[in-house]
Formats: sequence, C-alpha cells, structure tokens
Amino acid sequence: KQGRVDMGHGAGGRAMAQLIDEVFARAFANEWLGQGNDAAVLPAPAAGERLVMATDAHVVSPLFFPGGDIGCLSVHGTINDVAVMGARPLYLAASFILEEGFALADLVRIVNSMAAAAREAGVPVVTGDTKVVEAGKGDGVFISTTGVGALPAGRDIGGANARAGDVVIVSGSIGDHGTAILSQRESLAFDTEIVSDTAALHGLIAHLLELVPGVRVMRDPTRGGLATTLNEIAVQSGVGISLEEAAIPVHPQVEAACEFLGLDPLYVANEGKLVVICAAADADAAVSALRAHPLGTEAARIGEVIDDPNHFVQIRTGFGGRRMVDWLSGEQLPRIC
Amino acid sequence: KQGRVDMGHGAGGRAMAQLIDEVFARAFANEWLGQGNDAAVLPAPAAGERLVMATDAHVVSPLFFPGGDIGCLSVHGTINDVAVMGARPLYLAASFILEEGFALADLVRIVNSMAAAAREAGVPVVTGDTKVVEAGKGDGVFISTTGVGALPAGRDIGGANARAGDVVIVSGSIGDHGTAILSQRESLAFDTEIVSDTAALHGLIAHLLELVPGVRVMRDPTRGGLATTLNEIAVQSGVGISLEEAAIPVHPQVEAACEFLGLDPLYVANEGKLVVICAAADADAAVSALRAHPLGTEAARIGEVIDDPNHFVQIRTGFGGRRMVDWLSGEQLPRIC
Ligand SMILES: Nc1ncnc2c1ncn2[C@@H]1O[C@H](COP(=O)(O)OP(=O)(O)OP(=O)(O)O)[C@@H](O)[C@H]1O
Ligand SMILES: Nc1ncnc2c1ncn2[C@@H]1O[C@H](COP(=O)(O)OP(=O)(O)OP(=O)(O)O)[C@@H](O)[C@H]1O
Ligand SMILES: [Mg+2]
Ligand SMILES: [Mg+2]
Ligand SMILES: [Mg+2]
Ligand SMILES: [Mg+2]
Ligand SMILES: [Mg+2]
Ligand SMILES: [Mg+2]
Repeated sequence: KQGRVDMGHGAGGRAMAQLIDEVFARAFANEWLGQGNDAAVLPAPAAGERLVMATDAHVVSPLFFPGGDIGCLSVHGTINDVAVMGARPLYLAASFILEEGFALADLVRIVNSMAAAAREAGVPVVTGDTKVVEAGKGDGVFISTTGVGALPAGRDIGGANARAGDVVIVSGSIGDHGTAILSQRESLAFDTEIVSDTAALHGLIAHLLELVPGVRVMRDPTRGGLATTLNEIAVQSGVGISLEEAAIPVHPQVEAACEFLGLDPLYVANEGKLVVICAAADADAAVSALRAHPLGTEAARIGEVIDDPNHFVQIRTGFGGRRMVDWLSGEQLPRIC
Repeated sequence: KQGRVDMGHGAGGRAMAQLIDEVFARAFANEWLGQGNDAAVLPAPAAGERLVMATDAHVVSPLFFPGGDIGCLSVHGTINDVAVMGARPLYLAASFILEEGFALADLVRIVNSMAAAAREAGVPVVTGDTKVVEAGKGDGVFISTTGVGALPAGRDIGGANARAGDVVIVSGSIGDHGTAILSQRESLAFDTEIVSDTAALHGLIAHLLELVPGVRVMRDPTRGGLATTLNEIAVQSGVGISLEEAAIPVHPQVEAACEFLGLDPLYVANEGKLVVICAAADADAAVSALRAHPLGTEAARIGEVIDDPNHFVQIRTGFGGRRMVDWLSGEQLPRIC
C-alpha cells in the first residue's frame, strides 16, 4: 500500500487532509487556496464586467502523452473555454477522482504539471476536492476543472455572431493533439514524434483582441475537431461555411499518421488552437496579429462564411471539387481529453 | 446498445450534442445554459461583493438512496460549501463522467433530480460537460459540481474565527446521511427507514444571518462527520472545543443503526446539517433562528470553544467522564458522497 492511493485518502479524515496538504496545497500554493475553508473568497471582477464560467471533466488516456499530461491539459482546456468568450480567466477550481492503487508518484507528477500550467497562465487553482473510488471503478485519475473569468463591458463574442461574408481563420495546424494521443496509445513510432499542441490561449487571444476588437466568433476546436466546431457555429449563426482544403494547415507527420490510422485531421481534437471568425475587413489584421504571437505563427485564413439555409459546412478540395463536411459521427476517438 | 450510454456520447459529435440537448439542456433549461457557447456569460456580483467558489466531485454509491440520489446531492453539497461562507449561491457548473453501458433511464432520473434541486434552490446549472469512459473504467456516473456565489462586503465567516468562550451549535440531528447510505448498501432494513438529510442550506443560513449577523464560523459536517469538522475548526482557530454528549441530537434509529454497524455517529457524514459557532451572547438568538426554519427544528447548543494549546476536541459523556474526539482515521465510510 505504500506509495499508492488508498480509500482512506478520500474518507475525509487525517489521511485526506495530509494528502491535500502535502501534494495539492503544496503544488498549487496560493493565498486563496490557503484560506482552507469550504469555499474560496476572491476579489470579484471589476465594475461593469460580467462573469464567465466553464467546466470540463478530463478523462484522457493515457495520462501522460508527448507534449503534456492530464494535469496541464485540464488547466489549458478550461482556460481556453473562458478565454474564447473574450474574458480574462481569473480562477480555477479542480476536483479529483482517484482510483485506489494509483501510484502517488504519478499523482504528484500530474499535480505538479497542473500547478506549473496554472502558474504560467497566471490563473490559480483556488479550491479543490479529492475523492477516491475502488480499484476497477475509475482509471487512475479523472480531473474536473471549472474556470471563472471576467468579461469587459460591451464585448460580445459567441458562436451565433458569424455573418455571410465573414472570414474563417485558424490559429495554426490542426490534428496534433488527437494524433499524439492515438500514436501513444497504439505505440506507433513515426519518424518525427507528434507532440500535443496543448496550450493556454488567453495570451494569444488578448493580443488578437487588442488589435482586432471586433472579432465575432472564437472557439477552440477540441473534441470533434475543426469540422464539428464549424458545424456548431454554422447552426448557431444560421449560416453556411465554405473552406479551402489547401489553406488548412496540417503538419506533414500528422497528415501521415492520420492516413495510417484512417483518420481525417478535420475531425481530430486540438487543445491549443483557435478558430476565429471576423469581418472580411478585419481578416488580414487578425491573421497578422495571430502570427505575431508564438502560439499563432502558422495562423491562416481557411474559408468564409456564406448564406446557406441548410447551415452546411463545405470544402473545396485540391482538384476544384467540393464535398460536405458533416459533424463527427460515431466514436472514432474516445477519451482524447 | 439501445437505451444505454455508449462511447459515442462522449466523442464530441452528433450523438453527444443530441444527449446534451435532449437530457441535460432540457432538464436544466435556463437562459445561461441556452447561450450554447464554450462558457456561460453571467451577471457579476453587485459592486463591493466578493466572489466565492467551491467544488466537489460526487462518487456516492449507490447512486440512489433513501432521501435522494447523486443528482440532488451534487447540487446541495456545492451550494452548502458556498453558503457556509455567508455567500449567496449564484451559479453552478456540472461535469459528468459516464460509464459506457449506463442506463439512459437512470441518467435521466438523476439529471431530473439535479435540475429539480437546482430549481428549488434558485441556483441554475449554467454550463456543463459530458465525458464517457469504457465499461469498467468508471461506475455509472460521477458528477463534479462547482458553485460560485457573492459575499457581501464586510462579512467574515470562516474556520479560523472561533474564540474561547464561543458557543458551538448544530442545526439538527447528526449521522443521517451516512447511515442511510450504509443501510442501503448493506440492504439493512430497520423498523424505521433512515433517510438522508441531503438539503440545500442557503435558506436556513440566510435566515440565521439576518437575525445573527455576527456568526463567526459555519461549516457543513460532511465526510469525517461532526467530529472531524470540529477538529478542523479547532486547528484553524487555534482553540480547543468541549462538547456535551447528551446535547448532540441523534435520531434513535440512527443511533441503533450505528450501534449495529459499529459506527460512531460523530464520524458519520451529513449532507444537510450546519455547524455554527458564535459569541455566547448570540447563542440563544442563533438557536431560535435555526429552530424557526424547517431545516433547523432540531437545532441545539452542543458545546463551547475553550483555550487549548493542543487544539483538541473533547466530549463530556453521560457519566461525567471525558474523552478525546480525534479526527476520523482510516476508511470506515468510503464513497459516502
Ligand atoms: N485536490 C485538491 N486540491 C486543492 N485543494 C483541495 C483539494 N481537495 C480539497 N481541497 C481543499 O481542502 C479543503 C477541504 O476540502 P474538503 O473537500 O474536505 O471540504 P468540503 O468540500 O467542505 O468537504 P466534502 O468534500 O466532504 O463535502 C478545501 O479548502 C478544499 O478547497
Ligand atoms: N452535461 C451537460 N449539462 C449541461 N450542459 C452541458 C453538458 N455537457 C455539455 N454542456 C454544454 O454544451 C456545450 C458544449 O459542450 P462541450 O463540452 O462540447 O464544449 P467544450 O468544453 O468547448 O468542448 P470540449 O469538452 O471538447 O473541450 C457547452 O455550452 C456546455 O456548457
Ligand atoms: Mg463543506
Ligand atoms: Mg472544453
Ligand atoms: Mg470537498
Ligand atoms: Mg471549447
Ligand atoms: Mg463539500
Ligand atoms: Mg466541455
């Protein structure tokens, strides 16, 4: 039992208090978590700002993958959902479901990665929870994170705001995260290792909004990939979207891995990419703003918003053909995040 | 596969969107969730108020128990952690980890119970997430909830505020929740069914604070029970606590069940009870305020805060004896919430 999670770590007594002190509180160390009460008391957003709130459970398997692990992923993912609304992420809550027998050394590694990601992003984990389930009733560790942010007055960004004539931009290459996970899972070794793009996007977004405050839609194309994200936006905005296949950045090793695995990169999850839709007049400025930031160097204009009563997403292929790009169906990529 | 959760429900495509629409969004129906974006945009607390944030994962087993289920429990538990700080609970986020094969009918029942609890409490679920893990990697459903609330200026309630001479009060009988769960788990039938006390306490708390604004400490004695909660407070405040055993309300059927199960009610989890510590001069007013509310009819003064450099909790037993009341140790009550 030494060095492993046991049921006592979730029972609410001394063993749990010790685990929280020595692993979680030590790593996340900040004044809010240090209050040690049932809830954290925090400065509210500035006058006139609105609150923004998002949550994601993380069940990625394997827990460690090229470019990251479930810990930093759970920080990045929730920060990104707050940030794409145009909000400043302020605070994170984190709840852990540990499986009995999970190695404490792995837990420490994950929590430290999470703490490092939170510190780098400047968004502290201010409150948490720790539960333990019996061996065979969980899978190592699941982490749910919830983020709260502040949205400046007058800012209105959301999936319903796209209009015909707008331009669709992506902040970089697609398919990296999902392909990295799948390669790891299938123990595939490619010539060039595929690395997850997991990253917090609020810095990139702040830079973009400073130069192009009129951005209409932002979304992080996670589960379901770019294809599904654009379909969601098309339905929400009541428009169609037309893409240029040749313009969509895909790393050659991702292209090759997807071919090998029978996947279409358009449907593969990303964890550090941003879809931006803005007025045509703003498009060049938006692409340059993104490219000027380390997380957006491969940003590209990939299509446009069109009138379409069916709210379809379509793509112009290399040979001048066209095909429909439907929502992801089925279950091709389980437990990708 | 009909009528059961499958991996596709967590893949991020059409099946997930349909599950969210037909089960979650339909039950939680509110304008914030209806925005349908990556994060909910919400009115912020009033000027001068602070934010309060708490999170809990819920892994209770069994999922349904006398007096409640994992759904309403996950709403009550998080509302209570926000409310015991003296804050008005405003919003909930909820993330679900579903096990492949889980019956959709059970999921619907749980989500409806959660939605009813949220509606009754006036605290909407404004954002959510849905993941699915393979059969054998979860246990039906785990639910993490995060609550955000608003704390009025000047209010300072917390575990570090108890002072020697203060009075310790509990809002009602202890041990009901944990005993209800264990009876269900062991298929014990007692003469009188033991029912969980799961309830949202923010109404009771608002009523108390109106009449006794100077309350110093409030906490919900969940995992670890009353004994562990008081030990936490004793350490945080740097005091000792002395209890009167005869004054602590325990329902006779809970007493009997605990005897049968070899448990001490002091260590059994509660999900609708409140510990209050206030100045001696406020104690009578606090007890009457609690008793005047339907959730506090059995409120009682159970002990006092004393000077003790060891920060011990001790209890005076029926025969004039005294014993120490330590923190919960070990793992007597796994997966109680
Ligand atoms: N994994 C964690 N990371 C960071 N902080 C944590 C973690 N788990 C618990 N905490 C913090 O430890 C303190 C005690 O948490 P605990 O879950 O016991 O409180 P609670 O929610 O009131 O009780 P319960 O979970 O039994 O309802 C809180 O301040 C909480 O924020
Ligand atoms: N169980 C649920 N209950 C209520 N709303 C939910 C639930 N699951 C998802 N939602 C809502 O559905 C929308 C889409 O959720 P989704 O999880 O796909 O978004 P995301 O977090 O941006 O993507 P990902 O989880 O892949 O990172 C959001 O508005 C979210 O609040
Ligand atoms: Mg609590
Ligand atoms: Mg997300
Ligand atoms: Mg907790
Ligand atoms: Mg998102
Ligand atoms: Mg709690
Ligand atoms: Mg999500």
